[in-house]
Amino acid sequence: MKPEFTQRLNKLRQRMAVDGQQALLIFSLDNLRYLANYSGEAAYGIVTLDQVYLMTDYRFIEQAEEECFGCQLICRNRDRQSLGQAIRQVLDETHITSLLFEAGHIHLQMWSEIAQELNGITCTASTGLVEELRKIKDEWEIAQIRKAAAIADQALHDCMPMLCIGVSERDFALELEYRMQKLGAEGLSFPSIVGFGPRSALPHCIPSGKTLAEGDLVVIDFGAVVNGYRSDMTRSFVAGKASTRQRNIFDTAQRAQQAALQSLHAGQLATVTSAAASDILQASEFAAYTSTGLGHGVGIQLHEQPFISPVCQDTLQANYVVTIEPGIYIPGYGGVRIEDDVVIQSDGYSFISHAPKNFELEI
Amino acid sequence: MKPEFTQRLNKLRQRMAVDGQQALLIFSLDNLRYLANYSGEAAYGIVTLDQVYLMTDYRFIEQAEEECFGCQLICRNRDRQSLGQAIRQVLDETHITSLLFEAGHIHLQMWSEIAQELNGITCTASTGLVEELRKIKDEWEIAQIRKAAAIADQALHDCMPMLCIGVSERDFALELEYRMQKLGAEGLSFPSIVGFGPRSALPHCIPSGKTLAEGDLVVIDFGAVVNGYRSDMTRSFVAGKASTRQRNIFDTAQRAQQAALQSLHAGQLATVTSAAASDILQASEFAAYTSTGLGHGVGIQLHEQPFISPVCQDTLQANYVVTIEPGIYIPGYGGVRIEDDVVIQSDGYSFISHAPKNFELEI
Repeated sequence: MKPEFTQRLNKLRQRMAVDGQQALLIFSLDNLRYLANYSGEAAYGIVTLDQVYLMTDYRFIEQAEEECFGCQLICRNRDRQSLGQAIRQVLDETHITSLLFEAGHIHLQMWSEIAQELNGITCTASTGLVEELRKIKDEWEIAQIRKAAAIADQALHDCMPMLCIGVSERDFALELEYRMQKLGAEGLSFPSIVGFGPRSALPHCIPSGKTLAEGDLVVIDFGAVVNGYRSDMTRSFVAGKASTRQRNIFDTAQRAQQAALQSLHAGQLATVTSAAASDILQASEFAAYTSTGLGHGVGIQLHEQPFISPVCQDTLQANYVVTIEPGIYIPGYGGVRIEDDVVIQSDGYSFISHAPKNFELEI
Repeated sequence: MKPEFTQRLNKLRQRMAVDGQQALLIFSLDNLRYLANYSGEAAYGIVTLDQVYLMTDYRFIEQAEEECFGCQLICRNRDRQSLGQAIRQVLDETHITSLLFEAGHIHLQMWSEIAQELNGITCTASTGLVEELRKIKDEWEIAQIRKAAAIADQALHDCMPMLCIGVSERDFALELEYRMQKLGAEGLSFPSIVGFGPRSALPHCIPSGKTLAEGDLVVIDFGAVVNGYRSDMTRSFVAGKASTRQRNIFDTAQRAQQAALQSLHAGQLATVTSAAASDILQASEFAAYTSTGLGHGVGIQLHEQPFISPVCQDTLQANYVVTIEPGIYIPGYGGVRIEDDVVIQSDGYSFISHAPKNFELEI
C-alpha cells in the first residue's frame, strides 16, 4: 500500500478509536477512492482497526485487484447474496458488534434493507468523517490537481483562437473538452459551462447553439480530471471592446476575488474570506446580482468541503485546496465570474490555475 | 404543458389516488425530468393532485423557468431556509397532511434533517412509483432514444477507419465521443468502454494507453444522449483473422443474443428471455465465463427497470426499451459482448441500434 493511503487510514482509525468504534461502513465511492485507491463503481467498504474490506461484483473485481493493494477483496454474487448479508458476513467473521456507517451516502430504502441483516449490531450514523480528512490534501493530491489545472490552462490557451465571432457555445465547449483529453485528462471535472451574451448570466449555463456576437459577455467554466482529482476554473471575456458597464462588472468581480485571495492563510476564518469579497460586491452597483457562495473545496469531488460562504464555520488550514469565484449575474444582460483554484499555505496561498485574466477578446 | 407530461402526471396521480395519497415528494432528478421537463440540478418536487411544485435555487431558477412550463417554481435561499422548511411551507400552504416520499433517492442523513420539519405530517416511504411509469416509453421518448442510437451508429461508422493496429483504447474512445457530439449528441450516455486484447474481458474497461495489436479481441460499449435520453450499444471485433476459439466465442454470444431477441414480445416473462440466452451460454464451452445479467431498460437513465436476469419478476410490455447484451469474459484472454437496444412490440421487437455486427476487422 502506498504511504499516502496508510497515512489516511491511520488518521481515520485514530478518529474511530477516539470514539471507541470498531469499524466504519463506507458507501461513498469517493471515499473508497481516497482510502483504498478504488476507482470503479458498485463497491462498498468496511474499514476496521486493522483491515480494509472492499466488496464489489464480477464487473469490477479485476479492477479492484489491480487498484486496491492491501485490501481484502470480496466478490459478491448479487443474485445469491444481498449487500446486507455480505456486510453481515464480514462483521461476523471479524467479531465486530458495533460500527459507524456513512449516513450521508446511503439511500433510506437501501439502508432499511441492509439494516434488516444487522440485528444485534450497534449501527451509528456518521456524517463527514472521511470528508473531514479529505479537506487537507497531501502533496500527491495537490500534485494531481496541479496537473489537472495545467491541462485546463493549456487547453484554454490552445482553444482561444476558436473563440471568435460566430462560434457556438456548444462547439467551443466540445473543442475545449476534446483538447483537455488530448492533453492527458482522463475526463472532465463536470460538463463545461459556456455562455455567451445574456446566457453568461446563467450560473450553470448548458452550452447551446448560440453563436458569439460582438459585444457579448462570455463565461467559460471547466476543468480536467487527472488520477481522480479535479480542477475547476472560470474565465470571463467580452467579444471586442468592453462597454463601461461591462468593464465595471469585470473590475468589480476581479477586485472581489483579489480581496478574498489576499485574506487567505492557514488559520483564517472562512467567513472572513467570504466577507472580503462580499464587502466589495455589496458596495458596488451590482449588489443585487451576486450570490452568497464564494468558493468550495475541490479534489476527488468537484464540490467538497469547505464551502466558503457567510455561514461557513470552517477555519482554513494549510493544504486545503479551494476555489475563489465571485460572480455577478444580471438576468437578461449577462454575467462575469472569475474563478481560480488555490492551495492554502501557512502565510498565504499559491495559485493552482494560471490562465491569464485578460477581459477583451481581439475580434 | 406538453401533452406527454400531462399524461405522465395523470398516470402518477391515478396511482396516488388509488392509495389515497395527497402528494409525492420527489428527490430524483431523473424523475423530475420525466414529470416536469427539468434538466438541471439541485431541485426537488412535490406533485399534488392538481399541481407540481419545483424548488431550486438561484443557480437553476432561470433554467427551471425556461423548462418547467405549468409548474409552480420556488427559488429557495439556501442560507435562510432549509430544504425541510421549504417543503413544510408548501405543505402548509396546500393543506397537505400526508405524503409519499422517494425513499430510494434521499440519503438517510438528509431525510433525518427534512423529517425534523415535518412534524404532524404522515410521511410514507415509497420506492419506484415513477420508475414503474418510466418503464413504458411514449412515442416521443422512443424517438429520442432512436435519435441517440442513430448518432452512435453513425459515429462508430465514421470512426471505424481509426480502429487499426497501433491506435490506443483512449484515443479511439475520445474520437468516438467527439464524433457523437459533433453529430449532435448533447453528451455521452456513460464513459465509453474500449478494451483491447485481454482487457476486453473487463466488463467495465476504462480506456487506457494500450494499443491495438493483431489478433486482439476488441470490445466497444458506448452511447449518446439526446434530449436527456440515452442509447447503449456494444460491438466486438477481432483485429484481423479470428482464431477458432475467438470465432467460437463470438458465434456463441451472437447465438445467445439471437435466441433472446427471438423470445421478445409484449407479455413475455423477462425470465424466459433471460433463459433463452443463458441456455445457449451455459451449454457452450464458455459457461464459466458468462454473467447473469442479460440486459436492462434504458431511457433517462442508462440502467433502469426492468433488469433482465434469472431473478427478474417483470413481464415485458409494449414500448419497453431494453438492451440485450450477452457477454463472454475470459480473464487474461479477452471477451466479447454484443449489445443492442430494442423496443418491445406486441408481436416482437424493433431494433433501435443498427450498427453492423461484422467480427473481423480488415487490418
